[in-house]
Amino acid sequence: MSSLPISRFPVPRLEDLPEDIRQRVLEVQEKSGFVPNVFLALAHRPAEWRAFFAYHDALMEKEGGLTRAEREMIVVATSDANDCQYCVVAHGAILRIRAKNALVADQVAVNYRKADITPRQRAMLDFAMKVALRAGEIAEPDFEALRAHGFSEEDAWDIGAIAAFFALSNRMANLIDMRPNDEFYMLGRIPRSG
Amino acid sequence: MSSLPISRFPVPRLEDLPEDIRQRVLEVQEKSGFVPNVFLALAHRPAEWRAFFAYHDALMEKEGGLTRAEREMIVVATSDANDCQYCVVAHGAILRIRAKNALVADQVAVNYRKADITPRQRAMLDFAMKVALRAGEIAEPDFEALRAHGFSEEDAWDIGAIAAFFALSNRMANLIDMRPNDEFYMLGRIPRSG
Amino acid sequence: MSSLPISRFPVPRLEDLPEDIRQRVLEVQEKSGFVPNVFLALAHRPAEWRAFFAYHDALMEKEGGLTRAEREMIVVATSDANDCQYCVVAHGAILRIRAKNALVADQVAVNYRKADITPRQRAMLDFAMKVALRAGEIAEPDFEALRAHGFSEEDAWDIGAIAAFFALSNRMANLIDMRPNDEFYMLGRIPRSG
Amino acid sequence: MSSLPISRFPVPRLEDLPEDIRQRVLEVQEKSGFVPNVFLALAHRPAEWRAFFAYHDALMEKEGGLTRAEREMIVVATSDANDCQYCVVAHGAILRIRAKNALVADQVAVNYRKADITPRQRAMLDFAMKVALRAGEIAEPDFEALRAHGFSEEDAWDIGAIAAFFALSNRMANLIDMRPNDEFYMLGRIPRSG
Amino acid sequence: MSSLPISRFPVPRLEDLPEDIRQRVLEVQEKSGFVPNVFLALAHRPAEWRAFFAYHDALMEKEGGLTRAEREMIVVATSDANDCQYCVVAHGAILRIRAKNALVADQVAVNYRKADITPRQRAMLDFAMKVALRAGEIAEPDFEALRAHGFSEEDAWDIGAIAAFFALSNRMANLIDMRPNDEFYMLGRIPRSG
Amino acid sequence: MSSLPISRFPVPRLEDLPEDIRQRVLEVQEKSGFVPNVFLALAHRPAEWRAFFAYHDALMEKEGGLTRAEREMIVVATSDANDCQYCVVAHGAILRIRAKNALVADQVAVNYRKADITPRQRAMLDFAMKVALRAGEIAEPDFEALRAHGFSEEDAWDIGAIAAFFALSNRMANLIDMRPNDEFYMLGRIPRSG
Repeated sequence: MSSLPISRFPVPRLEDLPEDIRQRVLEVQEKSGFVPNVFLALAHRPAEWRAFFAYHDALMEKEGGLTRAEREMIVVATSDANDCQYCVVAHGAILRIRAKNALVADQVAVNYRKADITPRQRAMLDFAMKVALRAGEIAEPDFEALRAHGFSEEDAWDIGAIAAFFALSNRMANLIDMRPNDEFYMLGRIPRSG
Repeated sequence: MSSLPISRFPVPRLEDLPEDIRQRVLEVQEKSGFVPNVFLALAHRPAEWRAFFAYHDALMEKEGGLTRAEREMIVVATSDANDCQYCVVAHGAILRIRAKNALVADQVAVNYRKADITPRQRAMLDFAMKVALRAGEIAEPDFEALRAHGFSEEDAWDIGAIAAFFALSNRMANLIDMRPNDEFYMLGRIPRSG
Repeated sequence: MSSLPISRFPVPRLEDLPEDIRQRVLEVQEKSGFVPNVFLALAHRPAEWRAFFAYHDALMEKEGGLTRAEREMIVVATSDANDCQYCVVAHGAILRIRAKNALVADQVAVNYRKADITPRQRAMLDFAMKVALRAGEIAEPDFEALRAHGFSEEDAWDIGAIAAFFALSNRMANLIDMRPNDEFYMLGRIPRSG
Repeated sequence: MSSLPISRFPVPRLEDLPEDIRQRVLEVQEKSGFVPNVFLALAHRPAEWRAFFAYHDALMEKEGGLTRAEREMIVVATSDANDCQYCVVAHGAILRIRAKNALVADQVAVNYRKADITPRQRAMLDFAMKVALRAGEIAEPDFEALRAHGFSEEDAWDIGAIAAFFALSNRMANLIDMRPNDEFYMLGRIPRSG
Repeated sequence: MSSLPISRFPVPRLEDLPEDIRQRVLEVQEKSGFVPNVFLALAHRPAEWRAFFAYHDALMEKEGGLTRAEREMIVVATSDANDCQYCVVAHGAILRIRAKNALVADQVAVNYRKADITPRQRAMLDFAMKVALRAGEIAEPDFEALRAHGFSEEDAWDIGAIAAFFALSNRMANLIDMRPNDEFYMLGRIPRSG
Repeated sequence: MSSLPISRFPVPRLEDLPEDIRQRVLEVQEKSGFVPNVFLALAHRPAEWRAFFAYHDALMEKEGGLTRAEREMIVVATSDANDCQYCVVAHGAILRIRAKNALVADQVAVNYRKADITPRQRAMLDFAMKVALRAGEIAEPDFEALRAHGFSEEDAWDIGAIAAFFALSNRMANLIDMRPNDEFYMLGRIPRSG
């Protein structure tokens, strides 16, 4: 396991965390087997930590027209466009698990246009990338392109909001040199027998 | 007062808002004399609303090495770079009030390099703009440039985090066609006599 | 009134100006109540001054298919794209006055796609922005898009030529650090009672 | 001689030109042996024609710290960056003649960094290209770089103003599809015996 | 094993390949356990195939100041910048094997500035990325930056030439929709016990 | 004849070249009357030289749906976009000769959209430029646009592969400061009487 710093800023010890944050960290550790570094690195600022994960959960854990794998595709595609190592590696792992597909995360990261995804998912990523890179040009034809693939207006909000939230997340990770856990690199690459 | 839509998505009525959101809206109205449209437009998604304003307050209301006016400068400069009408107009108004300066907001919006600001503020905005536009390239020399003007590491987090949060905010406003209130355009342009 | 320099180059005194230039300056002062800094800052080079204002008047004072407010919209939108503080502030003021609209200038400056303008004006600004930013790609379909909104070929020249002239003007203003007069910031923001 | 159109707009016949314009055209023809198309194509708008050539002459015919060949280098380098066929071909010819150098125009057009020019000229073109492409970022260090090569402040104005004027000229030529005369392509390529 | 097409162009069968190409393919298969798709997809054009692999081997198999892992870093970093899925996935695998490091390929692909590499390797990738993206601006200071880390002029050629060769390779892969073999995704991720 | 260096790297003397390379150089000299510098500058690395010219010949000398002049147009247009002086000057000369047209090379170099070429050639160059500059976005509609002008799939490979090969060539020329021979500048500018 790497002992390299996970942030250029001080990282609080588990025992020094405020109780609500510590509880969440322990739950994640229980569930995943390790604590993703974002939970510790951002805890340097507890108030921002709380808002960050509340926002994250509101977008990534909610019900709606996008599958969980599709949400992660948006994260992976836009995070590579923003050169964010933490988000591509960590959410690439989650995408592999959610999609039960060992290949799609690397494909979407490098060039979603060439990935093993459906035309509907391709349209979803076209919209997400435009929000990520040129949001000021989003206009009616972009929503029409989504509708042509069966996405609702609420789905459009979800797609755009995930791209917008990771515009924030990518910048924070690059700002503080947030390091992805070594565990993420292998997760979801070997299909579990069942 | 304009009767044009303030969002391309449905906007809840004040009486239909969840109680905690309604309370905050009423407080803002009490204090400002009107309800900034962002409070209503984002309330279409209460969970996201709560996270958004918690994040906003954590960054914009906190103590630290940046004045309130300086925080608003970061918002205005990066929001113009992201073509975000709502944020430039609304936070331009707040900047005028906080800085007690009727000119600086328009200057910073168009080209902060030519604005009536201090060299220290200029360095702050150089850093913020790099986080907004090329965060993947942020490296040690950028932090050194801040230190040369007396900014601490915590200040660097503040500057970068504000730029990152408004990367999210700008994209949401462009996604949903959020319209700035007519009131913002004049706020802070005429010095109050004392 | 600000006493900050209005140019990084020497600025001639009114009494030292060549007679023709002095006359025009006095007329402008008579009409506007103040002398816009561009009239003084560019007078450092009288021959260029004469050509500049002759060109300006040929495009901005002529008859044709564009209203005066529409011409100013072109100036404001392209000047913000070129980060030109002087032109956005000064022509924003003129746009507010010509359009009798206190809001449209700030809207057009930040993102004309979200401004309170007609679809015809939106098409006009699409064309102008392409001339400002990627003129080498202007081709027949761009003229067709104008025709679809009733613009003539002569209107297309006007639109493109205004964008081209302010490509010059924006670069001169940034080159010499031309400062907008304080008066411009408030002009046209308060409707005159009648 | 090519019989292809020299503009997408109507081109006046020599005999229909206003007298002052006709005189200048005849003088140019007398001197050069042909009429450069810019003199006819822009004459569709006489008032703009007069301002254009007055501006051109004020910058290109004046005395100062730049040689005539150096002024043409600025035109050629910035016009290629703006994809302007007319200006690269026509001013490339003038540059060859002024510099008495058959090679330098093509070199400067494609990549001035690799051209047979002096370090001083290289610095001049660095400044000119920044004015052409990112004028809003011009700041004190750019002027210092010029001073280090012996350029005065007035020279800086000249360099920047030529880049600015051809920002206009390039956009007009692309707007109206202005065609360079066939004669330009060979001018200055064969040294005259003396 | 995936049965999806590996190219949008016809792919020759092994038995239909020219003898020299078939021999090389069999050798690669013997050594690697599978045939990387690039060997089959490019064989649609035997003459180009021969030149491509001769060039590849001349740069990637030669002796010199760069380790084999370092050469692969150049490929991975520049190929992600060019959105080339095949090269990032296939050469990412080779990089993991050559560097005996399961993490570095994904790090370098997304943002080499944040990867676990030495300052010398960082300087190498700065140079390679400039050749990949803005080769016309390469100048003496870029070579100096390499020398400061002990690279020779011949090393500079190697670095630049690898970036240049994969500028070709990335474009071919994107042109023909070349699909990386499924095997590459896992290669080098699990350390072999010894 | 210029005595300036033709490369920043050592250039072998003719008599020191490996025999196969020397033979080819002598043949070219016999045919052209001079040795294009690329044959000597790249011979610093014989293995790379052999692969380079094998690749070049496989693309530029083959039969197919593109004329020789059309292949050269692709080289000239993409090389100017890559700021490659050697390739624009040298292949501009070859284009003039192949097309028996003294003007088209300079036109295509600066802005192919305004050149004296057919709509089919314009479509060919649109495709080539996209491969040169944004190959990751090449998709089915780009191939359809070629088909609409009668290009086959094999023609598409040719167009894309030439753009890809000169992406390599342009980067090598800029890396090593390869200087075009003085002879190229005049070649093909004066029609041979016959």
